[in-house]
Amino acid sequence: MVVILKNNASETQIEDVKKHLEDYGFQIHESRGEVKTIIGAIGVKPGFDIRKIKILDGVSDVYRVTVPFKMASRNFKEGNTVIKIGNIEIGTDEIVLMAGPCAVESEDQIFRLAKVVAESGSKILRGGAFKPRSSPYSFQGMGEEGLKIMRAAADEYGLLVVTEVMQIHQIELIEKYTDIFQLGARNMQNFGLLKEIGNTSTPVMLKRGLAATIEEWLMSAEYILANGNSEVMLCERGIRTFETYTRNTFDLSAIPVIHEKSHLPVVADPSHATGYRTHVAPMARAAVAAGADSLMIEIHDKPEEAMSDGPQALLPKDYLTLVQELKVIAKAIGRNL
Amino acid sequence: MVVILKNNASETQIEDVKKHLEDYGFQIHESRGEVKTIIGAIGVKPGFDIRKIKILDGVSDVYRVTVPFKMASRNFKEGNTVIKIGNIEIGTDEIVLMAGPCAVESEDQIFRLAKVVAESGSKILRGGAFKPRSSPYSFQGMGEEGLKIMRAAADEYGLLVVTEVMQIHQIELIEKYTDIFQLGARNMQNFGLLKEIGNTSTPVMLKRGLAATIEEWLMSAEYILANGNSEVMLCERGIRTFETYTRNTFDLSAIPVIHEKSHLPVVADPSHATGYRTHVAPMARAAVAAGADSLMIEIHDKPEEAMSDGPQALLPKDYLTLVQELKVIAKAIGRNL
Amino acid sequence: MVVILKNNASETQIEDVKKHLEDYGFQIHESRGEVKTIIGAIGVKPGFDIRKIKILDGVSDVYRVTVPFKMASRNFKEGNTVIKIGNIEIGTDEIVLMAGPCAVESEDQIFRLAKVVAESGSKILRGGAFKPRSSPYSFQGMGEEGLKIMRAAADEYGLLVVTEVMQIHQIELIEKYTDIFQLGARNMQNFGLLKEIGNTSTPVMLKRGLAATIEEWLMSAEYILANGNSEVMLCERGIRTFETYTRNTFDLSAIPVIHEKSHLPVVADPSHATGYRTHVAPMARAAVAAGADSLMIEIHDKPEEAMSDGPQALLPKDYLTLVQELKVIAKAIGRNL
Amino acid sequence: MVVILKNNASETQIEDVKKHLEDYGFQIHESRGEVKTIIGAIGVKPGFDIRKIKILDGVSDVYRVTVPFKMASRNFKEGNTVIKIGNIEIGTDEIVLMAGPCAVESEDQIFRLAKVVAESGSKILRGGAFKPRSSPYSFQGMGEEGLKIMRAAADEYGLLVVTEVMQIHQIELIEKYTDIFQLGARNMQNFGLLKEIGNTSTPVMLKRGLAATIEEWLMSAEYILANGNSEVMLCERGIRTFETYTRNTFDLSAIPVIHEKSHLPVVADPSHATGYRTHVAPMARAAVAAGADSLMIEIHDKPEEAMSDGPQALLPKDYLTLVQELKVIAKAIGRNL
Repeated sequence: MVVILKNNASETQIEDVKKHLEDYGFQIHESRGEVKTIIGAIGVKPGFDIRKIKILDGVSDVYRVTVPFKMASRNFKEGNTVIKIGNIEIGTDEIVLMAGPCAVESEDQIFRLAKVVAESGSKILRGGAFKPRSSPYSFQGMGEEGLKIMRAAADEYGLLVVTEVMQIHQIELIEKYTDIFQLGARNMQNFGLLKEIGNTSTPVMLKRGLAATIEEWLMSAEYILANGNSEVMLCERGIRTFETYTRNTFDLSAIPVIHEKSHLPVVADPSHATGYRTHVAPMARAAVAAGADSLMIEIHDKPEEAMSDGPQALLPKDYLTLVQELKVIAKAIGRNL
Repeated sequence: MVVILKNNASETQIEDVKKHLEDYGFQIHESRGEVKTIIGAIGVKPGFDIRKIKILDGVSDVYRVTVPFKMASRNFKEGNTVIKIGNIEIGTDEIVLMAGPCAVESEDQIFRLAKVVAESGSKILRGGAFKPRSSPYSFQGMGEEGLKIMRAAADEYGLLVVTEVMQIHQIELIEKYTDIFQLGARNMQNFGLLKEIGNTSTPVMLKRGLAATIEEWLMSAEYILANGNSEVMLCERGIRTFETYTRNTFDLSAIPVIHEKSHLPVVADPSHATGYRTHVAPMARAAVAAGADSLMIEIHDKPEEAMSDGPQALLPKDYLTLVQELKVIAKAIGRNL
Repeated sequence: MVVILKNNASETQIEDVKKHLEDYGFQIHESRGEVKTIIGAIGVKPGFDIRKIKILDGVSDVYRVTVPFKMASRNFKEGNTVIKIGNIEIGTDEIVLMAGPCAVESEDQIFRLAKVVAESGSKILRGGAFKPRSSPYSFQGMGEEGLKIMRAAADEYGLLVVTEVMQIHQIELIEKYTDIFQLGARNMQNFGLLKEIGNTSTPVMLKRGLAATIEEWLMSAEYILANGNSEVMLCERGIRTFETYTRNTFDLSAIPVIHEKSHLPVVADPSHATGYRTHVAPMARAAVAAGADSLMIEIHDKPEEAMSDGPQALLPKDYLTLVQELKVIAKAIGRNL
Repeated sequence: MVVILKNNASETQIEDVKKHLEDYGFQIHESRGEVKTIIGAIGVKPGFDIRKIKILDGVSDVYRVTVPFKMASRNFKEGNTVIKIGNIEIGTDEIVLMAGPCAVESEDQIFRLAKVVAESGSKILRGGAFKPRSSPYSFQGMGEEGLKIMRAAADEYGLLVVTEVMQIHQIELIEKYTDIFQLGARNMQNFGLLKEIGNTSTPVMLKRGLAATIEEWLMSAEYILANGNSEVMLCERGIRTFETYTRNTFDLSAIPVIHEKSHLPVVADPSHATGYRTHVAPMARAAVAAGADSLMIEIHDKPEEAMSDGPQALLPKDYLTLVQELKVIAKAIGRNL
């Protein structure tokens, strides 16, 4: 932490600031210029609220010197985290595709779509059995029945399963059916849930919150890592801005930023980011070009009958075409898919 | 719902759109101009995803005609909701003050501060026993022990208690100690929690999410109302914007907007909105002038030792002064405090 | 400036960073902890791009120690800037009201409204003769004819005039008719215009840009001050956020923040901030309570015929009522109006 | 326009709304449901402020039926606009690269960099002679001298020139030296400048404002088109959000959205969008994959000495490598570069 004193800070104020810093356990280095005094406070105190120093008399500004996350940081670990599930690896040169409907709606539907996912060469089947819906009057998901048929469909077609867990008490149930827990955008700062997920050994895909900075997102990953689960991947799915022609604003620059700051793999979800089918393919291509380690894409063969988010689902034939295009782009940047 | 067809929409496309609308259960009114065809789709379907129509061939645009919330809407109910707890009423001309520390830290601390709250004439003691912290390394709250001592302090000084519930499994425990459940900003779209809180009969203060529109906020209130709990108040606590000189941006215009759209009372929290002690008093004054029905303000007598958010806490003497100022402003706009 | 070296920065890298800093003219103070090395670079270089240091090898982070504005800063000047125009002062305990239509539309209109402004006891007549409109097909203002009749109306009723200047070549013309230049939100970073306005001695009201941070806003004020014009007031008029129920988000916390960081007076414009007549009065009250030195409010007696922004204009009778309410609130916080 | 009446709107109110609409010149179609009355108001009135109807008694909501831009709209014109300058075309399958320093700093510098641009196969040299700087104390550009040497460097290497025009009075001067006018983000709503640029026949690259919606951006293009200049390309350069790890948030989804709504070509500027050299290459790759018709990239061979934005400039060798990667991605999506 670096503490900048006000130009007119008195000797007493400076001493008081130093005493506080020492009481909090920091080592102190003082630099006096002609106008400015700067105090370097050395010592890693994750979670320390720097405003505690900022409000002391005589203090002008305070800056953290270290990032607030530790285990999620690139410094913490040599090389990239690679998440292995069965014979699939996420975080290598091989880009992994996840696809499926927004919500599991029926046995027939999920088997039809699992078939498409397998045909395309994608490895992971997505689908929600418990759905976070902004309206209490909307379809809320099939629950355990949905989990069962999705597992069956995935097994039939040799796929892995990723599905959302929304509440602590659902963890045990969902763990029986899924290979990857999805933590949704609205739960990114549900700290109790993060801790409990951290106590499991099931891989987790942590979606970025609508208004979460990359730093807060990595702090939420830290919750899971700090509780013992190191199988965390991050999923960019669009943030909230003033723009209304798209559902959210797809922050693709988060991909290279995460790769610089952290060792964790990054998934990109162009379906939620754009909200409209016609924009999904160009944004999926862009995500691969930007360096995503995995893509999650919604598909549906009868989008106008979908119980949730049909308008952003690709048709199976369009998905199959897209996968071919993604393969070429992956190759162009030295990766496989 | 109003459906605008494209200028060049074919007769077949128009008929197909009408068929879809009828299948979804809407009544249809068609207007044909020289260039534009407009279809009015009458029928209230809360939660209907209008993108389902927007993606049909020949459709240019679709607008909802009704707000998506129903029970939270001003149309739903004559007059304002008044929440009665003991001899306190929230939602009348009398402005109610809630104050206390961010977190319950010790018996001594909470008793000292409860005394200040009572002395100021404020009616409700706030304090967190379970704390949502962005860092896993920060103080996470005293838990049940904190609830117990806060209840004791409130009882000692004739105050009500408001405290945060973060998880479904905490409801039963916290209900024993609190008069009002606080639902935090990060849980505004924790729909499972909203439903369970809706099943209780304890009044709820629902904080606005950092990136929540007023409409989404009212939809979250709708979850609680639709499950049977009509004692809901809304709390504006700042939204996330690009500005960094304040912790959040205090959206005070939300107060008159809510009063226009809904019958529910509005609380304003200038402490979280600004994040710095020096800005709390002017923003508290502004909130009263803007029409807030209640204010929630953080106080601490040793803010530099506070375990959470000390920098935004007012000192007791400053709080006492502020309350006197608020009384005068309340009177100036024809209310009491 | 404070430079934080990476944990593993080599001696050569540290020396190279120091050399760069010295070449840029900074004095250096070095602090070495066990893990971290911190370099304090002393010397005020307004406008220095700190990213120049941030990209050097071995550097982890860089922070500015001083704010980038100088003459706009509270440190620069004892006491508050008070702008005197005729017998009016802006920046004292007396709150000054500016009111009038969005656009000057006719002689009759502006005289009718100037009469209302005078009757209310307000001192300054607002009105646009050159209008920034987002559509090329919208009314663009009456031009010089509009300036003439506004000046005549103001003189008739003993009022001052504030009107917008949009282009450098308009300065000379508008200066003949106005007492205060308004610099609009869309021109807040029109640096050429700021400089030329800085070369005049006419007082300026600088509106905050839709996406401008408070720091950028003060930097734009700095352009005017640095060119010799010290009569600058700042006008908060709402920023752009994701919220759609209001036209903009009125950032009232900017008022106490500006008062803390700068000596310049602050005007608040609740009309543009909210965009709807019904929200103007509560937000005007809140702005006074938050500490605004002046308010700018749009009024119109035939808002449905207004050529621009009629929907946000108060009716004369509502304005007269509002002024009475504002007087009481001003008094409640120890000011006059 | 579609007008939704309130459920309890009286017959008199409905008639009054209809009269207003007719007075404004609209044709009327009325639909009465059991609960809702909807009035379709047919007639294109670009620039009509729908709030004029929204504030009438009995009105619940009003929606525009047509987009507010006309000549910029995809409906206005068959096929894509292709801008031809010399033997270069922008808006075809061939992706055009623009590169160069942020600011022209010296003859030597611009000749060295023009050589790199030519070697890479890029066609257009960028560089600012008049610089918009947020600080009055920063380097403001070389002015006409800069224009001269940039023109000379471009001619020497067979390149076109793009450079920024900030003020109306600079148009005539800059037109002598440039092939394309750049309109900067801060001038996107400088309507007077847009009009004057519209009166020239020089192609224009219109950058998106920091807080501009895609709709507002297209409205600004409309200003230029409506004044007679049809050679407009749009440049996405990042928007302002709450994220701080990047300078701006690169809204790549704007590319497919613009291609859907408009016939104008889209340029992408990953340098300003990200602000840091390390993120430029992945974002440039993503922009090509997302469908950009052209890219503008900042390069510098001595970035630590650059007078402006050095930290976001690519080194020549990195630029040459990037161009090769972009060629492969362009080919992967069926385009050339």
